[in-house]
Amino acid sequence: MFAEVLTIGDELLTGHTVDSNSAYIAQRLTEKGYWVRRKTTVGDDVEEIKTVIREILSRKPSVLIISGGLGPTHDDVTMLAVAEALGRKLILREDCLKRIEEFYRELYEKGLIDDPKLNEARKKMAYLPEGAEPLKNTEGAAPGAYIEHEGVKIFVLPGMPREMKAMLENEVLPKLGERKFIQRKLLAEITDESKLAPILNETLKRFPVKIHSSPKGFGKYIGIILFGEDEESIEKAKKFMEEKGIRFEEGW
Amino acid sequence: MFAEVLTIGDELLTGHTVDSNSAYIAQRLTEKGYWVRRKTTVGDDVEEIKTVIREILSRKPSVLIISGGLGPTHDDVTMLAVAEALGRKLILREDCLKRIEEFYRELYEKGLIDDPKLNEARKKMAYLPEGAEPLKNTEGAAPGAYIEHEGVKIFVLPGMPREMKAMLENEVLPKLGERKFIQRKLLAEITDESKLAPILNETLKRFPVKIHSSPKGFGKYIGIILFGEDEESIEKAKKFMEEKGIRFEEGW
Repeated sequence: MFAEVLTIGDELLTGHTVDSNSAYIAQRLTEKGYWVRRKTTVGDDVEEIKTVIREILSRKPSVLIISGGLGPTHDDVTMLAVAEALGRKLILREDCLKRIEEFYRELYEKGLIDDPKLNEARKKMAYLPEGAEPLKNTEGAAPGAYIEHEGVKIFVLPGMPREMKAMLENEVLPKLGERKFIQRKLLAEITDESKLAPILNETLKRFPVKIHSSPKGFGKYIGIILFGEDEESIEKAKKFMEEKGIRFEEGW
Repeated sequence: MFAEVLTIGDELLTGHTVDSNSAYIAQRLTEKGYWVRRKTTVGDDVEEIKTVIREILSRKPSVLIISGGLGPTHDDVTMLAVAEALGRKLILREDCLKRIEEFYRELYEKGLIDDPKLNEARKKMAYLPEGAEPLKNTEGAAPGAYIEHEGVKIFVLPGMPREMKAMLENEVLPKLGERKFIQRKLLAEITDESKLAPILNETLKRFPVKIHSSPKGFGKYIGIILFGEDEESIEKAKKFMEEKGIRFEEGW
C-alpha cells in the first residue's frame, strides 16, 4: 500500500520554484496512512511525462498523485501526456466546458477579464482522458481528473498551490478513505546523535515500529518520528528507549 | 548533456521537510548550463536508493547529484546504497576518519558535545565507495564523495542545507568547470514533428549545437532547446532552420 507523487513543471527543474506542492501532498497522504515511496519531478514535456508515468505504473502503487500542467497555455501538456501514457483518447467533456465557460463569465462579470468567450486555449482545459472522472476546481478554471487504471488510483491536479490544495482536500482525500496508521513526533534530548543509533536499532528489533531520526542542529536535540499501527506499540517502544536513558519531549 | 538530482530522506516523503535542496542544486546546475531533466526523491532505504540510482544511470546523464543520508544514524545509508548500486566496495578512508576525529574534537573543545571519541556511528561516516574522491565538508562531520562511473559524474552530498550548499559551491561546481554553454528555448509552430526531424538532423550536421525537441501541446507546437557554446552558433542554427521553413516563437 504505497503512493507516489509526480510534480510537473520546467520551473521546478530550473530551481525557479521550490516544489512545496509535493511536500504538502506527501504530508496529507502520510496522515492518511499511506507510505509515500517516491517523488518525481519532470518538465512540461509530453515524452518525459509519458515515460515517467509508465515507470511509476510499473511499480504498481495504490495511489499516484500528479500535479501541474493543466492550464491553458501551450506548455500545459499534462492531460495529453497522461492520456497517451494510459493509451486513452483525450475527450472533450461538455460538462467541463460548461464549468469553464461559467468560470470565465464570473471573472468577466467581476471585471477581472475583458473577454468571457471561450477560445481554443480555454477550451483545451475541457479535454480529459477517456473514462476519467472530472475533479472540481473551486479556485481556478482547469478541472482535475480521477482515473482508475489497472488498480492504480490516479489523480491529476493543477500546479497552482491554492487550486491543488482545495482539490486535494475536497476531491482526492475523501476518495482515499481512512486507514489506521499512527505517527508520534518526539524530541530526544541528547548531546550526541551517534549514541542514539544503537538504542534505535535495538528498538526496531524489539517492537513493530519504524523510526525516523534527524538532527535538530548540533548539541541538544534529535527529532524522532515513531511510526506504528497502534498507540500501544509506539508507547512501548518509547518506554524502552527511555529505560535506555533517552529523555523525550513531545512534539518538534 | 543533461543532469539529474536525487534527494534522499524519509522526512521528504512524509512532507515534514520541503525539499529546498533539490531546487538549490537545480538552479546552480542550470546556471552552469546544464539541463536538469529530472528530480527524484526516495527514502532512507538501501534497496530504494540502489534501484533509483541504477535507473538514473541507465538514462546516461552527464551529471548526477545525490543529497542526503550521510550522517551517523541508523537511517543514513546513502553511501552504502551508492556503493552497491555501482558494484563497488565500501572502503574505510583513513584520511576521512582523521578529519572526522578532528571535527568532533573541535566540537568537544567548544563544549558542544561531551565525548570527543570516535565510536562506530561516527566511524561509519568515513566509509566511501571504492575509487571515490572525498569531498570536504566544511560545515559538518560527513565527507561527500565524487565518483566517475561509466561516463557519469556522480556527486554524493550531505542533506543538511548548510553542509550541502558549502560542498556544492566549493567542491562540486569547480569540478563541473566553467562550461560556456548556452540554452535557447524555442517553439516551432508545425503540425507534424516528422517534418521537423530531417531539418534537425541537417542542422546538427552543419552547426556545433545540440538539439532537444518534444511536442508541446496538441500537435501545433514543438518545443525545442538549442544547446551551443555561444550565441552565434545558436543564432546561425536557428536561422538555418527558419530558412528551411520552420516558424519559431521564443520561449516555452
